[in-house]
Formats: sequence, structure tokens, C-alpha cells
Amino acid sequence: MDNPPRTDRNKVRRLPKRAHYDMETIYRIVDEALVCDVGFAEGEQPFVIPTLHARVGDTLYFHGAPASRLIRHMAAGHPVCVAFTLLDGLVFARSAFHHSVNYRSTVLFGAGRLVESDEERLAALEALTEHLAPGRWAEVRPPNGAEMNATAVIALAIESASAKVRTGPPSDDDADYALPIWAGVLPLGLRAQPPVNDPKLRTDIDAPGYILRYTRGENAP
Amino acid sequence: MDNPPRTDRNKVRRLPKRAHYDMETIYRIVDEALVCDVGFAEGEQPFVIPTLHARVGDTLYFHGAPASRLIRHMAAGHPVCVAFTLLDGLVFARSAFHHSVNYRSTVLFGAGRLVESDEERLAALEALTEHLAPGRWAEVRPPNGAEMNATAVIALAIESASAKVRTGPPSDDDADYALPIWAGVLPLGLRAQPPVNDPKLRTDIDAPGYILRYTRGENAP
Repeated sequence: MDNPPRTDRNKVRRLPKRAHYDMETIYRIVDEALVCDVGFAEGEQPFVIPTLHARVGDTLYFHGAPASRLIRHMAAGHPVCVAFTLLDGLVFARSAFHHSVNYRSTVLFGAGRLVESDEERLAALEALTEHLAPGRWAEVRPPNGAEMNATAVIALAIESASAKVRTGPPSDDDADYALPIWAGVLPLGLRAQPPVNDPKLRTDIDAPGYILRYTRGENAP
Repeated sequence: MDNPPRTDRNKVRRLPKRAHYDMETIYRIVDEALVCDVGFAEGEQPFVIPTLHARVGDTLYFHGAPASRLIRHMAAGHPVCVAFTLLDGLVFARSAFHHSVNYRSTVLFGAGRLVESDEERLAALEALTEHLAPGRWAEVRPPNGAEMNATAVIALAIESASAKVRTGPPSDDDADYALPIWAGVLPLGLRAQPPVNDPKLRTDIDAPGYILRYTRGENAP
């Protein structure tokens, strides 16, 4: 999609120098994040539910049990807000006030649609599986009829979005640089440990390369 | 606080065997999470904003610029929902359908209050700094008058909460265990890399032990 216009809904108000509105930056965050948080409102009451997602072009896909509150809400076309946050580091300044975190976050706005066609539903489930680990879909048993019936797929067309990014060292007040206090960044990243085989795994099967060499994102430790 | 009653708002509907309602489990997730996602609604439109938090007893604290949308909304006492998600692993089943993630998540409900007293504001800022790295507050320059004026602190009394936790190996259909497909868990955790000194750091200062030996959570790699 074209880069979204800045409206009252997506405009970053605090620290606007950290704001980004280009879809390339936004989609890179969406694609790296393994989970997201979907916000919706029932009357005055807001809800936030963490869930898995996948992106195909300008569409986000979610899946779940047809009876779930989140799925039913999105299927009804109500407005939702989806947040993705990647934490890249803790920023330690000399003053308490200038402590911060390095992060890449994005917030998307749109309305859901229940996917009806089996072709689009299957493509979405493939994208959701591939989002966890590229290469996985080709190896697994695909969904059967009963499983397809037990799975609702929601498509969300992205109407509006913004990203916010902080990088780099702390920024202290001029007078504070002379203080005898350590300052710097502690980089953080999501790290995969060696895989743990299913206790019921056949003894003649090893973990595939995309599992053994799994990394996620530019800052993977 | 006492463990919350199950109401329409906090009841876990999907996979209720993963649900937890004891505050010890809930607070352990809150305390390990470095960031959270605050959901709120303006009319029909939901918003989700990632932010830092700290817990003192049964109160959550947030801080920000007094003019921020999130701070103003919480200061007005509107209902909010705060989600915390810790991702512990990817769960690879033999069937696409049974793929999952291991996680610990909690959702809290309450309404905000603008903190007026300087004593409570300062205690909250201490908690927010200590939440990032225990031991930090005692070393840094505390907030001055101008910084206190530029910082709004919000307290959220927790009215209702629930947690959802998945652990362990994949669960496949009986017939699928014979398939020649690798299955298991890829553990994930937030890992700190070696600290990066501020380029403007005085040359006679080393990173303190709580930075050099930083870990977060039970599953830290």
C-alpha cells in the first residue's frame, strides 16, 4: 500500500522525531514480530489479546476458534488496533529522567473480515505457519476438513499505521556527562536455544536445519 | 490483592485449562515483562500503546509526558486493559493445526488515577527505574524539579486479571505420531548481549555488575 497519511488516529504525538510512516519500516517490524497485541472495545471497555499473525501483501491474517471473543469481534467488522513491539535494548542514562529503551514498534488500524473462501483460508494458514519458521509448511501434515471447520481466519486490511523507533546511546543533559555514573545501552534480543525434541519423536528423525539455525531479526544475539 | 473473581471481563474462554487466576502467577509475569501494551478506547476506536511499567503491591505505575494521549486518557479515569506477554518458545507439531507457542501472558483491567503527591510520584519513578535494572536508582542523578514537572505518573489499581500459560511439548493427533516429521519445541528467551558504553562515557568508569550480569526471567538463555 502507499504510505498512510497522518491522521488524528495514527499520528505520533510524543517524540515525533521517532516516528515513521513508511510501509517498508512498518512491515519489517510486523514480519519480525512473532506475536502481536490486538486491541478492541466493547462499549467503553477495552480489551487487549496477544495472538499470532502473518502478513500477505497489505493484509494481516489471524486465526482462532470461531467462538473466541476476539475472532467474533473481528468477524463483525469492528475497528481494531494491532500493536507490534520489538525490544532492542535498555538505555541507561546518568539521570533517572533520561532512562529509556531502544525499540521498534508499530501500530496498525483497520477492520476485520471473516475469510470465507477455502483457498484464501488455506493460504492464510500457510502464511501463519511460515511466519513462525520459514520452510515449515512444506513438511507438515496440512489441515484436514475437521480442522478447517474448527479454524476461523480473519483478514485485516490495513487502513492506517505508524511506527516508532528509538536507537542509539542515551542522551543526557550537558552538565550530567561529568558525573561518575556508568551510561550506555544493554542490547537485548530474542534468542533461540537448542531445540527440545518431542518426547514422542520417532528416534530416526533429527531437527531440520531451519530449526537448528533459527534466528529472528536483525538484532538476533 | 485477593485472587480476582471470574467475571465476563477476565474469564479465559478459549482453552480454559491454560487459565490462571492467582495473583502470584499474574504478578510474576508483570514483574518479568519489560514492556506492556495498554489498550483504551475513544468512542468505538481502540488504541494499543506499548509502554514501560512497574508494580508496587497491587498498583501498576506508568509515566509519560503530561500531554500524551495515553496519559491524559488514564488520568481521566477511563477503563484500560493492560497486556503482558512473555514468549517462551515455538511449538512445532506434526500437523499444521497443532502448531503453537509456549507463552505466559496476563491481562489486567482497571482505571487510572493521576498521582498528585510528590512522595508517591518519586516512589513510582524509583520503581520504574528499578524495574529495568534492580540497583540502578541508587546510582543515578534523581529527577530535579523541572523533570518532575515534565513527568506525569499514573497509578492503576488492578480490579480484575487473568493469566494464560502454555508449556511443554506439542500435542498431536494419535495417528500423526507415526509420521516422519520432526516435532518439538524451540525455546526462546530475551537475552542480553554485552553492554555498549555511551561514546561519551568517562574513561575511568566501568559497567556495574548488575549490567554485566543482567538476566531477565526464569527462562533466560
